[in-house]
Amino acid sequence: MIDLGEDAVVAAITRKLRIAPDVQLGAGDDCAIVGGPRDRTWRLLKADVVVEGVHFLGTTDASRVGWKALCRAISDIAAMGGRPEHALITVALASKTPMAWLEELYRGLRRAADRFGVSIVGGETSRSPGPAFINVALSGRVERKQCVRRSGGLPGDALYVTGRLGGSLSGKHLDFTPRLAESTWLVTDHLPHAMMDISDGLAADLPRLASASGCGFELDEISIPRTPGCTTAQALSDGEDFELLFTVAPNSAASLERAWKRKFPRLPLTRIGSLIAKTQRSASPSKRTHGHDHFA
Amino acid sequence: MIDLGEDAVVAAITRKLRIAPDVQLGAGDDCAIVGGPRDRTWRLLKADVVVEGVHFLGTTDASRVGWKALCRAISDIAAMGGRPEHALITVALASKTPMAWLEELYRGLRRAADRFGVSIVGGETSRSPGPAFINVALSGRVERKQCVRRSGGLPGDALYVTGRLGGSLSGKHLDFTPRLAESTWLVTDHLPHAMMDISDGLAADLPRLASASGCGFELDEISIPRTPGCTTAQALSDGEDFELLFTVAPNSAASLERAWKRKFPRLPLTRIGSLIAKTQRSASPSKRTHGHDHFA
Repeated sequence: MIDLGEDAVVAAITRKLRIAPDVQLGAGDDCAIVGGPRDRTWRLLKADVVVEGVHFLGTTDASRVGWKALCRAISDIAAMGGRPEHALITVALASKTPMAWLEELYRGLRRAADRFGVSIVGGETSRSPGPAFINVALSGRVERKQCVRRSGGLPGDALYVTGRLGGSLSGKHLDFTPRLAESTWLVTDHLPHAMMDISDGLAADLPRLASASGCGFELDEISIPRTPGCTTAQALSDGEDFELLFTVAPNSAASLERAWKRKFPRLPLTRIGSLIAKTQRSASPSKRTHGHDHFA
Repeated sequence: MIDLGEDAVVAAITRKLRIAPDVQLGAGDDCAIVGGPRDRTWRLLKADVVVEGVHFLGTTDASRVGWKALCRAISDIAAMGGRPEHALITVALASKTPMAWLEELYRGLRRAADRFGVSIVGGETSRSPGPAFINVALSGRVERKQCVRRSGGLPGDALYVTGRLGGSLSGKHLDFTPRLAESTWLVTDHLPHAMMDISDGLAADLPRLASASGCGFELDEISIPRTPGCTTAQALSDGEDFELLFTVAPNSAASLERAWKRKFPRLPLTRIGSLIAKTQRSASPSKRTHGHDHFA
């Protein structure tokens, strides 16, 4: 497995899955989509795990781990234009873990749940002979006409990112704010063609969005909004930014930027490039040399 | 945590959770229930994890691990009278795990999914620095009028179990059949008052059902259907039986037993006792001395 990137693993194992006719989209995007082709709303389903020693340290404040665990999944729901609703939490812990750790974990989970309107409807606990695992399964809802996939981008689309990229390990990866309010506003007033959240770094995630859309891309590396103190390489590859990456028609770009500044004056929105036709060579940072990949 | 049983842990952490008005039932039963009070159908949500070294061994055939992981959650949906629909799979694996192991795991997951009508709509993979973890988040659907909780039992109800109990570690825990067909038939024709699946052993789970129903119970230990070669103590406490435990009104018992024999001639249905009023002393095997508890 060590030779295979995560994308290849997931693609190989999900290719053979049979899905029912009510599944609009299975594995491969930020969330799965369930519902009939004409339903007014669709359900979004997402599961995501954080593992001690991979996504957080054993010494990390457990309430920040809880916040992160739930907000990662909320970010995925936001990335499709939806609103999160119901979460199931699965925790596996060493039996020597103090009860206070679990209480702190749930304090962080509850804080995120209350802030973003999520009901935690189930909590399983199991013993772990090794590291702690916290899995969040989150379901949400999206208006069918506001549902944004990775695959809707068109050649010529303007590419945008929210916020600033890089430096997540200095703390942002534990305290980030999923861009739910921004996503809701975007899909209501400025429906993007394609959207995803940046979890593995722009260098890994932008090629995924472009590829899903059947496009190449031009990335203006100078324009990438960097967290203060970060290099462009870090902004490209640190990962766990949990910012939105999306595309809009080029003739909507100016009005989007004006409206954004009025609505979210404190959060930068930055045009970083364009989608282009696939036959053109992409000015692409290679996914295999940059970008966070759990199996790399 | 080592001093607290799993029930106490879950109760302590879920007591503080805020849930939205569309949540009929949060943590504490086999599944959460989501839907409006008059909706014709409700959604059932369940998450469940299997951990290497706790629920399976590193040497276990991975396809049997996949079967078990999904069938545990299917058994919980069946225990509420529902049908499973959509599953999200989260796998955390050591980076040295061969790709073939993951393929075998998914072969078992797919076999269970195809057999019981489940669409696997998402598959996340992550690295684990320790044991393998496989989490299944499963959503299902139940007719509101056929939804059976643990809490509906009444004093005088006849107590039944399907199949035979005990001896799961000799292999049954990897190859069991969730009682989905039986559950569907029961809720259609012989609606139980209360139902759950036996995952932690009858000695742990029967007191939970009785307690949720505000009842005590009388258990006729001699009558407990045992897997060949098992003692009564094993049948009470081995756990991972994944049989149905349910109650019906005493005057329905005879007709249920006759109809069951015609419908499922090869699967025993056994009356093992009764619910009684709570003020009476329960003839109860102690939960703390018997019964599998992940935190014991």
